Order: sequence, then C-alpha cells, then structure tokens
Amino acid sequence: MNQRELLKILEFVQTGKLSPAAGLERLKHLPFEDLGFAKVDHHRALRQGYAEVVFGKGKTAAQVAEIVRAMLQKKDSKHNVLVTRADAKTFATVKRANGKAAAKAQFHEVSGVITIERNQEITGKGTITVVSAGTSDIPVAEEALLTARMMGNRVEHVYDVGVAGIHRLLDNREKLMEARVIICVAGMEGALPSVVGGLVAAPVIAVPTSVGYGASFGGVAALLGMLNSCASNVTVVNIDNGFGAACVASCINRV
Amino acid sequence: MNQRELLKILEFVQTGKLSPAAGLERLKHLPFEDLGFAKVDHHRALRQGYAEVVFGKGKTAAQVAEIVRAMLQKKDSKHNVLVTRADAKTFATVKRANGKAAAKAQFHEVSGVITIERNQEITGKGTITVVSAGTSDIPVAEEALLTARMMGNRVEHVYDVGVAGIHRLLDNREKLMEARVIICVAGMEGALPSVVGGLVAAPVIAVPTSVGYGASFGGVAALLGMLNSCASNVTVVNIDNGFGAACVASCINRV
Amino acid sequence: MNQRELLKILEFVQTGKLSPAAGLERLKHLPFEDLGFAKVDHHRALRQGYAEVVFGKGKTAAQVAEIVRAMLQKKDSKHNVLVTRADAKTFATVKRANGKAAAKAQFHEVSGVITIERNQEITGKGTITVVSAGTSDIPVAEEALLTARMMGNRVEHVYDVGVAGIHRLLDNREKLMEARVIICVAGMEGALPSVVGGLVAAPVIAVPTSVGYGASFGGVAALLGMLNSCASNVTVVNIDNGFGAACVASCINRV
Amino acid sequence: MNQRELLKILEFVQTGKLSPAAGLERLKHLPFEDLGFAKVDHHRALRQGYAEVVFGKGKTAAQVAEIVRAMLQKKDSKHNVLVTRADAKTFATVKRANGKAAAKAQFHEVSGVITIERNQEITGKGTITVVSAGTSDIPVAEEALLTARMMGNRVEHVYDVGVAGIHRLLDNREKLMEARVIICVAGMEGALPSVVGGLVAAPVIAVPTSVGYGASFGGVAALLGMLNSCASNVTVVNIDNGFGAACVASCINRV
Amino acid sequence: MNQRELLKILEFVQTGKLSPAAGLERLKHLPFEDLGFAKVDHHRALRQGYAEVVFGKGKTAAQVAEIVRAMLQKKDSKHNVLVTRADAKTFATVKRANGKAAAKAQFHEVSGVITIERNQEITGKGTITVVSAGTSDIPVAEEALLTARMMGNRVEHVYDVGVAGIHRLLDNREKLMEARVIICVAGMEGALPSVVGGLVAAPVIAVPTSVGYGASFGGVAALLGMLNSCASNVTVVNIDNGFGAACVASCINRV
Amino acid sequence: MNQRELLKILEFVQTGKLSPAAGLERLKHLPFEDLGFAKVDHHRALRQGYAEVVFGKGKTAAQVAEIVRAMLQKKDSKHNVLVTRADAKTFATVKRANGKAAAKAQFHEVSGVITIERNQEITGKGTITVVSAGTSDIPVAEEALLTARMMGNRVEHVYDVGVAGIHRLLDNREKLMEARVIICVAGMEGALPSVVGGLVAAPVIAVPTSVGYGASFGGVAALLGMLNSCASNVTVVNIDNGFGAACVASCINRV
Amino acid sequence: MNQRELLKILEFVQTGKLSPAAGLERLKHLPFEDLGFAKVDHHRALRQGYAEVVFGKGKTAAQVAEIVRAMLQKKDSKHNVLVTRADAKTFATVKRANGKAAAKAQFHEVSGVITIERNQEITGKGTITVVSAGTSDIPVAEEALLTARMMGNRVEHVYDVGVAGIHRLLDNREKLMEARVIICVAGMEGALPSVVGGLVAAPVIAVPTSVGYGASFGGVAALLGMLNSCASNVTVVNIDNGFGAACVASCINRV
Amino acid sequence: MNQRELLKILEFVQTGKLSPAAGLERLKHLPFEDLGFAKVDHHRALRQGYAEVVFGKGKTAAQVAEIVRAMLQKKDSKHNVLVTRADAKTFATVKRANGKAAAKAQFHEVSGVITIERNQEITGKGTITVVSAGTSDIPVAEEALLTARMMGNRVEHVYDVGVAGIHRLLDNREKLMEARVIICVAGMEGALPSVVGGLVAAPVIAVPTSVGYGASFGGVAALLGMLNSCASNVTVVNIDNGFGAACVASCINRV
Repeated sequence: MNQRELLKILEFVQTGKLSPAAGLERLKHLPFEDLGFAKVDHHRALRQGYAEVVFGKGKTAAQVAEIVRAMLQKKDSKHNVLVTRADAKTFATVKRANGKAAAKAQFHEVSGVITIERNQEITGKGTITVVSAGTSDIPVAEEALLTARMMGNRVEHVYDVGVAGIHRLLDNREKLMEARVIICVAGMEGALPSVVGGLVAAPVIAVPTSVGYGASFGGVAALLGMLNSCASNVTVVNIDNGFGAACVASCINRV
Repeated sequence: MNQRELLKILEFVQTGKLSPAAGLERLKHLPFEDLGFAKVDHHRALRQGYAEVVFGKGKTAAQVAEIVRAMLQKKDSKHNVLVTRADAKTFATVKRANGKAAAKAQFHEVSGVITIERNQEITGKGTITVVSAGTSDIPVAEEALLTARMMGNRVEHVYDVGVAGIHRLLDNREKLMEARVIICVAGMEGALPSVVGGLVAAPVIAVPTSVGYGASFGGVAALLGMLNSCASNVTVVNIDNGFGAACVASCINRV
Repeated sequence: MNQRELLKILEFVQTGKLSPAAGLERLKHLPFEDLGFAKVDHHRALRQGYAEVVFGKGKTAAQVAEIVRAMLQKKDSKHNVLVTRADAKTFATVKRANGKAAAKAQFHEVSGVITIERNQEITGKGTITVVSAGTSDIPVAEEALLTARMMGNRVEHVYDVGVAGIHRLLDNREKLMEARVIICVAGMEGALPSVVGGLVAAPVIAVPTSVGYGASFGGVAALLGMLNSCASNVTVVNIDNGFGAACVASCINRV
Repeated sequence: MNQRELLKILEFVQTGKLSPAAGLERLKHLPFEDLGFAKVDHHRALRQGYAEVVFGKGKTAAQVAEIVRAMLQKKDSKHNVLVTRADAKTFATVKRANGKAAAKAQFHEVSGVITIERNQEITGKGTITVVSAGTSDIPVAEEALLTARMMGNRVEHVYDVGVAGIHRLLDNREKLMEARVIICVAGMEGALPSVVGGLVAAPVIAVPTSVGYGASFGGVAALLGMLNSCASNVTVVNIDNGFGAACVASCINRV
Repeated sequence: MNQRELLKILEFVQTGKLSPAAGLERLKHLPFEDLGFAKVDHHRALRQGYAEVVFGKGKTAAQVAEIVRAMLQKKDSKHNVLVTRADAKTFATVKRANGKAAAKAQFHEVSGVITIERNQEITGKGTITVVSAGTSDIPVAEEALLTARMMGNRVEHVYDVGVAGIHRLLDNREKLMEARVIICVAGMEGALPSVVGGLVAAPVIAVPTSVGYGASFGGVAALLGMLNSCASNVTVVNIDNGFGAACVASCINRV
Repeated sequence: MNQRELLKILEFVQTGKLSPAAGLERLKHLPFEDLGFAKVDHHRALRQGYAEVVFGKGKTAAQVAEIVRAMLQKKDSKHNVLVTRADAKTFATVKRANGKAAAKAQFHEVSGVITIERNQEITGKGTITVVSAGTSDIPVAEEALLTARMMGNRVEHVYDVGVAGIHRLLDNREKLMEARVIICVAGMEGALPSVVGGLVAAPVIAVPTSVGYGASFGGVAALLGMLNSCASNVTVVNIDNGFGAACVASCINRV
Repeated sequence: MNQRELLKILEFVQTGKLSPAAGLERLKHLPFEDLGFAKVDHHRALRQGYAEVVFGKGKTAAQVAEIVRAMLQKKDSKHNVLVTRADAKTFATVKRANGKAAAKAQFHEVSGVITIERNQEITGKGTITVVSAGTSDIPVAEEALLTARMMGNRVEHVYDVGVAGIHRLLDNREKLMEARVIICVAGMEGALPSVVGGLVAAPVIAVPTSVGYGASFGGVAALLGMLNSCASNVTVVNIDNGFGAACVASCINRV
Repeated sequence: MNQRELLKILEFVQTGKLSPAAGLERLKHLPFEDLGFAKVDHHRALRQGYAEVVFGKGKTAAQVAEIVRAMLQKKDSKHNVLVTRADAKTFATVKRANGKAAAKAQFHEVSGVITIERNQEITGKGTITVVSAGTSDIPVAEEALLTARMMGNRVEHVYDVGVAGIHRLLDNREKLMEARVIICVAGMEGALPSVVGGLVAAPVIAVPTSVGYGASFGGVAALLGMLNSCASNVTVVNIDNGFGAACVASCINRV
C-alpha cells in the first residue's frame, strides 16, 4: 500500500534518516495517483446520489446475480440497486441468488430493468419529467424514469405525445412547466424535444431512440434532428441511452 | 419523317401493292416511338399548367437570356416564364436582351428567381400555402411560392413558424386548414412538416433546406426527419428543391 | 372535464359572480387545448377516410387482437380495420378473439396485412394505381394497395415493370394515364418513378424498398435515386413505407 | 384583437344575449392560441435571463445593425445584446448606426462575437466554466464564454488542456470542481468531456468543434466521441455550437 | 390481341373502309409497344447467350422447383438453367420435382449455385478468367465462374492471389494475359483489380465482396477501392454480384 | 543495366567460370523485375491503342506544356496526345511552347480537354456510343467521347435523353443498337444506364456525374443507382470519370 | 519445377547448346517469380516470429481441426499454433483430431482463441503491454495479448482503465512506461489511446472495438476518435482487430 | 511554487512541527500534478528526438514567425525547427523576423514545409523509407520525409510506385527491405501499403491522402482500404497526416 510508503518517507525525515530535500526527491517519484483519489471518487458518488448500477447487456444471468450480491452485502451502503437491459431469466436468478436481501427486487418488463429499492429518500431538488413520443419509445422512457427514481429523484411522465398530434402535448403543458429537468425520448424524426424545449424554461435532455425503419437508420434520423434542434435548451445523449439521460438529469437536479 | 413512311405503307395497302399481312410485317419494324409521342408530351404540359422554366444554375447570363428570348418568341404560347437560381447580373442581361418582350420581368432577390408573368389565369383548384420555419428558409420558400404562382395557382404563405415557438404556428391554423396543398420548408431538425401534417387534412410536401451547420450536414438532418415523419400525409422532395415541391403541389392542385 | 369548468365560468359570469373581465382572466389560465380538439381530430379522420389502423410490428398477437376488438366494438364506427406487418399467428389470434365480428377478416400473406372490410364505399375521387418494379417489391406494393383500398379508394396495380425492360412499362401506359394518383414502388436503383413520372401528369408517390444487396444499403440507393428524380411530379416517402404512401395518395385523392 | 372578442362574448353572457351554453359553443371556435401565449413567452425569457441575440451569419452588416438598433430602442428592456458570427465590418456598422447607444459595444475578434453589456447583474446561481482542448477550439469556447456571461452568469475558463497532456488538465482540477456547470469544447477525437466528466460531479455540456482534417469529417469524429462518452454526466450539442451550449448551461445554472 | 386490331385496320384500308390518312390516325393511338417487342427481346437473349436464370434468394424451395420445371418444359429452348443463392434443400426439391429432366442438375455448395447444363456449346469468343483474393472470396468467384460457363464461355480461375503476397499473383501472369475478359473478386481493401488491371490489356470486371469485418462495412471499403482504381481498364459491379459480373463479361466476350 | 549482368553470368557459365549450379544461385538473387518488363508494358500500350495522356488537374500550365513537349518529341511515336481537365490558359501555353508541333492542338471548352490528333487510324473494332442524360452531363460525356476518339475508336453520341422523357431515348434506339460498346453518362438518379442496358445487347459502361444538389451528394446517388442497376450488362466507373470509361470502352472495343 | 528448367538452360549454355545471348532470351520468358520467392517468404516468417495462424471465423470445426493437424505435422517447424475466433466446439474437435500432438492446446473462452504453445522462446526485444478501457473490450484485448505471446513476445496487460476514471490509468503509469510497444483497445469514444499516447514515449497501436450501441455505429466512433488522436505516437488498425494489432506490435518489437 | 510547499511540509516534519501522520494528511491534499510532471515531459521529448514543431495551418505569417523566434531563442535547445502547412509568404516573414538565426531556414514548396536544421545528428537506429503511389501524393510524402529527417532519422524515398504498375514497385524491393520502418503514402484505392507490407518484414505506417475525386471522398476510400489491409504489418494514421506518420515512425525507430 502506498500510504505506508509515504508514511515511511515522512518517518525517515522525522528521524533524520532523510533530509527534507532527499525526501522531496523520493516523493516526486512516487506514483502520485494513490494520494487519496479513491476517497474523492467516493465523495462524488455520494454527492450525485448514484445508485449501484449493473449494465445487464452482455452479462450472463449468473454474472449479474453475483455482482448484485456483492452490492447487497456491502456493509456501509444502502444504495438502491439498478440492473439495466436484463430479462425475466436474469431477474429470477437474481432473486434466487440473493434470497431475503432481494425481497424488494422488481422486474420492469417493458424496459428490462431490475430495481431493488432500499432507500426512498428524495435527494433531488425538483421533479424530473420523462416525456415520450410514441408507444414504442416507452422502453427507453421507462429505463430513464426508473433510473432517475433509483437515484433519489421525484419523477413524472408524459407518454405518447407525438408532434403530429400537437394538442396531446399541449394538454400536458402545465405538467411540463412544473418540471425542473425534462427527459425527452423520441424516435422517428426526433422532433419532440424542439417543441417541448420551446414550451418550457427547464433544460431538456433529448434521447433519440432506435425506433423506426428505413431512413431512420436505427435512430440516426432522430439523433440528427435533436442535435439540430431550434430550441436552445436542448442537449442530446446517445441513441436509446435512457440510463445516461437520467444520470445527467439527476446530476442537474442536484446542482 | 416517319409519318410519311407510315402513310406510304397504308397507301400501298390501299392500292394493293401490299397485302394487309405484309403491311403488318412492315409496321412491326418501324421505329414505333415516332407515332405521336411529341403531341402527347405537349398535351401533358398543357394539363399541368407548367410554365416555361429555365434552371439558371450553371448557365451564363448570356445563355439564360438567349433561352428566355426563344421562349418569348414562341408564337403560340403565352406561358409564364420562370428562371430559377439567377442573380442580378443575369436579370439585367435578360432585360437587355429581350427589350419590350421582357417588360414584365421581375427579379426576386431573396430566392434568385426571375419571373415574367404573361398570364394571370388561375388554373389550380385551390390554394397552395407555403409554410416555412426560420428566416433563412425563406429563399427556398419563395422559390416554391413563385413557381406555384407562375404555374397558375392561388398561393399563400406562412413564414417563420418554427416548432420551438409552437404558438406562432397555431396562430395560423386557420390559414393552414384552408389550403388544398401545403408546401412545408424547413432546415435544421426538419420537424415542421410533422406538426403541420398533424394539424391539417391536406397533403404536405416537405422541403428540407440546407440551412444549418455541423450535424445538419447540409440538409441531411432535415431530410431524414421529414422521411421519418410521424404524420401520415407528408411526402418529401430533395434538399432545397423549392421548385420541385411547387411542381408537385401544382400537379396535385390540378387533379 | 374541462367543458364543465368552462361552463361554470360562463355561468358565474351570467349570474354576476364574476365580471366579464374577471372571467377573461380565468379563461386565460385554462388549458386551452381542451376546447374541442378531439372533435376537430374526429372530423379530420372522417374527411381523410382513414381506416382504423394497427401497426402490427413489435406487438404480440394478443395485443393486436385486443386492439382490434376495441375497434370492432366501437358503437358508432364502421371504419375498415387494417393491421400491417402481421403474420399468420397474429391473424389466427385476431380471428379467435373476435369471433363473428371478425368474420370478414382476411390475411394477405405476401404483405403481412390483415384487413377487415366493413365498408366498401368508395370515397376517393379517382383511381390510385400502384406500380412496382420487381417481384420482390410486391410485399410493399400490396401493403400500399390494401391500405388505399381500405381507405375507400378505387385501386389498380401494375406489377413487375422494371426499367430494364422498358416495353413492359410502356405496354401499361394507358392504365397509368388513367390514374389520379400513382404509387410507385421500387428497390435497387429506384429509377421507376422517374420514368413513370415522365409518362403521366398525375402526382407520383415514390416508395423505395429495402430490396437488394450490397450497395443498395437497405434501400438507401433507391431512396436517393427517387429524391434526385428528374421528373418533377415525384415525391418520396420512407423506405418500405407502403402504408404511408397509400395514406398520402388517399389524402390527395380526396382533395 | 382576440381578448376583445373574448370579452365581448363574456359581456354577452353577462347581459343575457348569450346563454352560457351558447357562449361555450362560441368559445370553442375561437383561435385558442391567442389567450395569452405571448405573455407566457415573455415570462420565460425573463426567467432564463436570455440576452437579446442576433445570429450574424447570413445577414448583411446593415441588417445586423438595424436589428441591434431595434433592440437598443426597446423602452422597457435593459437586456444585454449579443451578436454571434460577426466580423469587423459588421461591428463598425453596428457602432456607426447606434451612436451613443452602442458605446459599450465590443468586438471579440477570435470568436466573431459582438457584445453590448448593459446589465452586469449576475443571475445564475454558480459558475459556468468553459474548458477547451486545443488552441483552435478557442473561437467556439469564447463564443460559449461570452454568451454565458451576457446571460448573467459568472464564468471561468480553462483553455488548452488536451487529453494527450493529461497533467495540464489535472493541474486545473480544483477549478473544474468549483464549477456548477461545465462547457467542454473539443475537436479532433473529442475525448476531453469524458475525462472532465470523470473528474467532476457537475453536468458537462460537450461541444464538438469542426477543427481537424481528414477523418475528423468537420467535427463528426468529435461528435460521435462525445455521444459515446463513458462518463455519465455528459450531454452533447451540435458541432461548433458554443452559443447553444451556453444557453443550456445558463438554463441549468438557473434551475 | 393487338396484332389482330392492327390487321383489321389494314384490311379496312385495303377494302376502302378507311382512307390511308384515317388509318394513320388510328395507328397513332394504338399501344405501340405490342408491335413485336417480344420478338426483339427474344433475339437479344439469343445474341447474349443468356442462360435461363432463377434468383433463388427469397424464394421457397417449391417456388424455385416450379420455375425450373417451366424452364425445362419449354419446347424450343435448350438453354442451360442456373439457380443462384440456393441451398441443399432447394436442390433436393428441384431434383425431385423434375425427375429425369433434371438428371444433369448439380449443386455447387460453396456458392449455392444449381446448374443444369443442357448445352455445352461455347459461344463466347475467348476465355473469361476469374481471379480472387482470399479463400473467403471463393463463393462469389464460383458464382461468377459457373454463370459464365452456363452462358457458353470458356472459363478459367486463379484463386487465392491476394496482393499482400504479390508473387502468387505474378506466378499466374501468363494465365491472366491469355484471358479475353477478367473477373476480379476481392473483399477487404479491394486492391486486387488494380494490380491485375496493371498486368493485362483485357477489361477487368471488379466484384467487391462483403468479406471482412469492422471498417470493411460489408464490402464498402472494397467497393470504394475498386471505384478509385488507378488502373484504367477496371469497371465495377455491385458488392457480391458474381452473377452480374459474369453477365457483363459474357456480354463483352460476345461483342 | 541488368541485361548486361545477366549476360555476364551466362558468359561465365559458358566459359566455365561458374558452374551451372553456381549460376543458378546468382540468378536467384538478381532483381527479377528487370527481365524485360518495360518491353511488355510497351507492347500493352500498343495493343490498347492508348494515346499519350496528361491529367491536367493539379498541374500548372507550364508543367502541362513541358510534358506535352516531351511527348511530341519522342522519335518513334505518333500517338495522339490528350490533356484532360485543362483550361484556356493551359491550352495557350501548350500552343506557345510547342510551336509547329502543336499545330493540330484543339481546345474543347465544354470538357476542358486538349487534343493533338496525329493519327486518325481507327483501330477499335466497332463504334463506341456515348449517351448522356441532361445538358449538364455533357462535359463528362465529351471527355469520354474525345478520349475514345483519341484512342482510335469510331465514336457516336446521343445527348440529352433523360429517363423522364423516355421517348427521346427510344427515338434513338437504332443508334444505340449499332454500338459495340456504350458509355452512359448520368447524374441525379443515375437511371439511364438501366434503361439503356435493357434496350441493347452491348456492354454499358455507366459514368455517374456529380451534377445535382442536395441528396445527390456530389454524384453518390447516381453512383449507387448504377451499382444497383437491374440491367445485367451494366458496369460502373468512378464519379465524373469520363476518361476512365473511355479507356475501358476502348479496351473492350479491341478484345 | 522451375529451378530445373533454369538449370537446364545454364547447362545448355555450359555445354554450348545455347549461346549466352540465346540463353538470355530464354531466361527473359521464364516465369521469373519462381526464382526463390518461397525462400524469401520463409525467411520473412522466421524474422517476424509469426506463429502459425488459423482464422477460425467462417470455417467449420472440422476444417479448423484439419488445418491444425497439417500444421502440427510439419516436420521442421515448432511454431506456436494460434486459432482465432473459435468456440468450445471447435476446440473439442481440434483436441480430438490431434490427440497427443494437441496436448498443450488451450481454449481461451473470453476471446475465443485456441493456443498450442510449442515454443516459449522470447524473441521480441521488449514488453508489449495491452491496455483496455472497459470490461467489454477484454475479448479483443485478450486476442491481442495471446497473439503477441504466441509470437514470442513478453506481454503485460492493464485492463479496465477507461478515461472517465483517469486515476485508474495514472495508477498504472509506471507499467505503461516500461512497455516497448503498447496496444490500446477501446470502444465507445475511443479516447484511451490519446491519453496513453500522451503518457509514454513508446508507439501505441490503437484498436477500436465494436463495443457500444447507438451512435457508436459498431466501432466507427472509436475508430474516428483514434484516427484523430491528438497524441502523435498513435496509429490505428481495423475495428476489433486484436490479432492485427499484435502482429504489428510484434513486428515493431523485433525491429 | 509547489516544490517549496512540499519542502516546507517535510521541514515541518523534520523539526517536529508536524507528525509524520499529519504530514501525510497534508500531502494528500496537495495538487499532486505538480510533482515534477514537467520534467517527465521534457525527458520524453528528449527520448523521442522530437524537433520543435509549428503547425502553420490557421496561423498568420506573423504568428508563425513569432513562435519560431521563441524557439530559436531558447538557450539550452538546439532542436531542429519544423513548420508544416506554410506558404512562401510565411517563409519570407520567418526569415525576415529571425535574421541570422534563421540563416539555415529552407522552404520546401511542394509540401509547404519550412525547416531550420540546427542539428544533423542521427539518433534513429535505422532508415525510415517513404514510399508513395502517385505524383500527387508527393506533398504528403515530402511532409513525412522532412519531419522524419528533422527528428534525427536517416531517410530514403521511393516515389511514384503505384500498384497498377507493380514492376516499378518490385524494382525497388531491395530498398524497401533495407528500411527499419516504412511510411506508405497513397490516395485513390490506397492499395500500396498492402503490397508493400507483403514484401517486407518492417512495420508499415499507411497514410491515406485526399488525392482523387468522386468516390474517393477526400481520402476515405484510401483510408478504408488501408484499415482493411490484408497485410498484417500495416497500421494507419489520419488522411494526409504525413507529419503524424513520421512521428510514429520516428518513435518506432528509437525503440
């Protein structure tokens, strides 16, 4: 361990085995990175209210279950646990492997998210509202919603308010205006964030989805639409990245 | 000339020089294309109300002036004349070269269109309304507007109604609902046609513009947005193709 | 309900509980969107002759069957029902779940379309003709054809008339010239709409298909070809969007 | 004016000329959009602290000068004025055209921004720090910086801290950690936001720049890098969109 | 039938029921396309030596078998039969369905081609040589080879001569120089046609293959390489289009 | 010189200074490439009838003039000289620098080609016909035409026969059918080669041009259209590569 | 065999059957490529320390097993054997087919690599260190690591040091600085090589991986990031090409 | 200064003012980055033999001249100075501004490089050979060559050896085999590195150039070709990045 080395140098200086100048030389060649970074990182996690997260994609059910177990057994943490891109089988395995500790585990089928809510404290300052365009955008919207909630935010949603039926969106204007941060999920032409952004003063995190076919190019059309939004309070995350949008939203909701 | 040949065959049949069967054989080997196509084409032009059009781009001022002169000198035609993508110099040359015949020539600076309106008859059945998003989309919108007018249509326009200020668009809903065909011009995210398409029952011709920068990729973002429109009465033409949109709209306005 | 609120305000004004000015203030803060939009939307549907549509893609057989049941049970509607992108299993489930109400349900295997024709009234003004290039374009062409028919249009089709055998297309010229709107479906180089557009005066809705391989890039080659068409009466919809093309065509056929 | 109509209806109800039910009918057919939207928009502007902005690109010097004059003459507004993408000539014209009113006008040559600071009130809650990678990213960074300042934010900058010399970035860690929002401007591989995002808890607005050549594709490489950032507090705006990034940052800095 | 109509007109002219001029009028309005096109097409087929071809992709085994049966039963044709992109199951079905008529049917597993060689006459003037780069390019190369042979050409092949082992290619220089047309099949960087083109005077038809991964983008890298070939006797066909290359080569080998 | 070395080894063997085995060893280490390659290359040039070619693009007028002078001074060659992508200034310089030797030099303004025809012998077996779609494709078409002629081919052209006016193409069917090789030049949707390819039995070399705007992407739309041609006698060269098409056509016209 | 022919010519010269000049003529027409190339190639293999490699992808288990057997039976070679992109089934087949000879065969499940280490000699001059960003990059990293080891290099690895947690990378700085060549594997934004390149003086071979989703476009984002690296000691290989990176690294480690 | 702080802490420990543990605490909170990084960087520069480099692109002549002056005035450095992407005017300004100090300044017109060679010591271990395909690739090749030479490497070049004339390349095989590192510069299809890579055992740094037109897409075709190279000793740098290639080559030439 590095701190020990550091201490030893200081003790040598104390006892005169090293002059301060010689100590300085020695210090310069230590791997400086170990001077407490971990602690900083730890603090950051606390500040952001990050839940413990497992990206389920590309992991076996057993691997996920094991990682979750390690999380649940950490003594000093009561963080919520979130598994993204999981399926029913993984959920069953997680339940089985963690027994009582996973009693609160829930599987959200539409988005493939597993939540274990151990802490319902709301630490975000306002409401994060998730808006989505079509029914097929809901999986990504739900991933965002659950992530935001697991990270200690008050959440709301307004689904199925595509721009081709603008009145449905306008019907929900009040709800939108009450949000502190908006996550706006849309596939196809990705026009929703521009319209929403024009209606509210809050920052809008746009999430393009891979919903569509042909010239939607797996979400590229929506992504480009959002990057070129004519509303000036819109920023963009990667295609289908509901989780990431919620992280940013949660981060803004804490500043 | 082909008709003469044809006639000769028929005369041979009449006079018995050829039996009908032998005439049939001869007819099969004639170049069939000459049997009156030109006339058909002529008819088509009349039905569509097409003005005489010169694409100014890539032509010298002198070339444009000469083509216009040929058009103005056609005896039996009083078609309107339209020059697209021209500049002030071309306009001056056209004026100079055509004297009194070009007395009605006008230069529309914003769109670079020259019009010579010789015929104000309205042949389209309803109104073609041109809607555009930002001020920088106006050149393309104006090209569409002037083209539609030169082709004998009643035209209206609703400019500067971007989706990030949705109320400006809604303020003009009545005007939109009165249109028989809508041309919808937008750059950036190209979301306007989806919103407009959702408000009206008329067909919407969407024109992406190359307005924007960065990830607008010269109009590709708008183009993709429009192709993926969630409104089902939207079709799309090429980037910046105000002229083409007006042709289609005019064609629909005549059916 | 909002109308009730509105009425209450008006009654307060009538009874003097509110001055007109105070009533005005109250009105301004009502969610304006509820002032009858639904009715407007309803009207629009009637005008466009839109059938009831279910997009089968991404829905389970059971979900589709349930949605269809809801449609069939609507008291005041005798709209045709159309399910796109379905399969034999979905069809069986729809039949089973809807009993006698689905007696007229038909499954069109080539395009994966289910139709329940409850209304054969022709409301479109002319004929919509669907033209397609190769045999593999037929699924998209059929989706367009059935959609147009379900929306109350007289329909015709001309299949297998690729541009490399131009005479097959020319053989059908008369049929093409009788159409009020043409839907032109083509994969590979997407050249058909240009040729068809040059032969007729009617608007041509071009549908690129994802048929092809290699540098067809899933329909992009055909899409670009159509966007760059040298015929001026051609507009374009998304790749494989037979349904959308028929919606636009139907919309034009009603103007 | 619409309010007058509304008032008239209410007065008719008050005086019994209309029953409440008949009044309701009349109300439904009013263009609802005029019920105070403008005021709402006005409020939004106030809340966001938006300065008055002119996009200089594509406008003549005279046009810019005229728009600025209109802004400076508004009676009830002391907003800062910001012109983006301007040049020295435009600046001179603006100065000349506005005389004393433009006394505080400044031209920032690197970014082509003109500022007229009429109001130094800080309304943002914390500091917005602009970080940039290479010297050629500075124009975009400066546009962001000036925009944020004109919108009433405390601003800082950390320039020339590319990831290939990671120690320069780490040297500024404390400054980064004090920011409430970070704008991170980078061209080439666009890696800076990921590294910065990993060091801080604040939201990071990433701005790709078109700096680079060859496979940077005018900023696309940087854009993609940022969209795929492995740091979860990063969102992205359009290429070279320093102005937009500052709008979002300012918006976050007010929530 | 059209010929009958034509004959009737001629008979009317013969018998004086129509004057030649009136006959001319009538002729102009006949669908001209039926004046013997089929025959022309037939002739073309003969001249090109085209075998009867079935594209197996997207067709069921039963469909292919039926089409082949129709081909084999044509009285007056002894063309070779070629089925591309087939599999073992399709082959079995074809054999079963056609009994003795398909006695010569062979399945070429590597390329998925079925051949029924009924005619071994060599009608091409010289040798078509198929050159390919890596072992994984062989399926496409074999499709080209078999197609060329079925179309009546003398064929040779030189496989596995990638440019990174240039001596293997040079070892076969004499064989290359004897070819009248060369088909050059290569994936990855697609450099082979440039090198081959530089060694010979014959035309080189380059076929990019979808072999590769990552930045080969399914053959796009090879395609671009070939389009930019610095050898001036190279032309290109679509990715994986072995069949098409052989058609062109056969067509050249007949001129 | 290498032949001398080789000869020396053989003489050593003859005179016994080297045993055959030792000679063999020596031979293996010679740079084999010098064994007569140059001559082979020379022969190839003769067989292909290649004119002497200078690519003018990126060279100064002086550089071009100097290269042309070297060509004209070669004793034993009477090849035609061809300079592509030149301008009037280059032409003047070439004339001035070469005096009487360049008496026959001609500048073809539309295509920017300079020709010096010193040899009118026709060595190609048939006619190469250049077909082009729009007037703006003519520069590329003319480059192809002049190149083919300078290489000793009989050439014809059919210009301005776009597919949207199919009858103009059909009017020229006979001319097309007489060609031994067809070069087909088209921008926009690039559909012409498919239609032409379907009308003739000759090989068709398709040249996409960069003519167009918006979604033509500098010729990419035309290129993709041609690569996906449904006619099986079509191959493709690079965008605007009229020269290259003529090289291939000339090469085919000699086989 | 060619050497025999050559020898015969030399013997004829020795014995006077051929004059040296006539021998020279004969030599010129020999296929020069056979003058010892194989040996050269062999030498190259030795110098590069290339193991015997089988690309498993696209080959059946039986094919791989057979190729391996041929390798193991070569008399004079004790090269290590490497099979890439294999699976458990292939491994079992290889074991079974090769009995004792494959006793040392190992299957590396994460990367799908089979190794048969017959030679542990270290021939590379320094250490090749494989650095990777996320856990999902490990398959590609392991392929690189095993390839490098099989080719006779000392190897190290530093995994899971993504740039969003820069301290983890800095913790390993010493290890990085001891490497003679670094292979840097990263997906998503591909920023790692830039940071690593800035920390060390050794050449860095960057390998983009296809890890990611949405706008990572199967590794394109990472690839572009690496090509635009601001560190000047970075070069790039194809997406997922761990094997290729190790080849280059091994090649550098021998110079 | 930071070292002073560090020393003070150590002195406090020495004199007992701080216990070692308390000293440790203090040390942890120091900005660690200042512990001698600069020196490390300095060392790296020395080891790599990096010349002082100015990227001329985007800088004014005056700016370049000033930077060069600062470099020339550094007391303890005799590094060579290299300015890339400069022009004649910049060169004149540099000369004028630096008088005698710039006596050795040379302008290399083809590549736009300015060199001031103050140190001719060769520190690279072997020869770096720059190979290029066409004459238009020479500017990039020369940039690479001069960069490598300025960095203390022995350099050679082999120009104009395109793959369509493979014998020219083979003629230079010996020169290629003597290189320790090869830089291979090519535009168009970018095939040269594959062929070169197959001939030598040295690492090959491939540089795609933006030379070409149409489907070369500004160097993308060459870039993709190189990334997909079938030779396993090839890595790639950005398009036109001759400077970068030389940096990597120099770096390899020192390991």
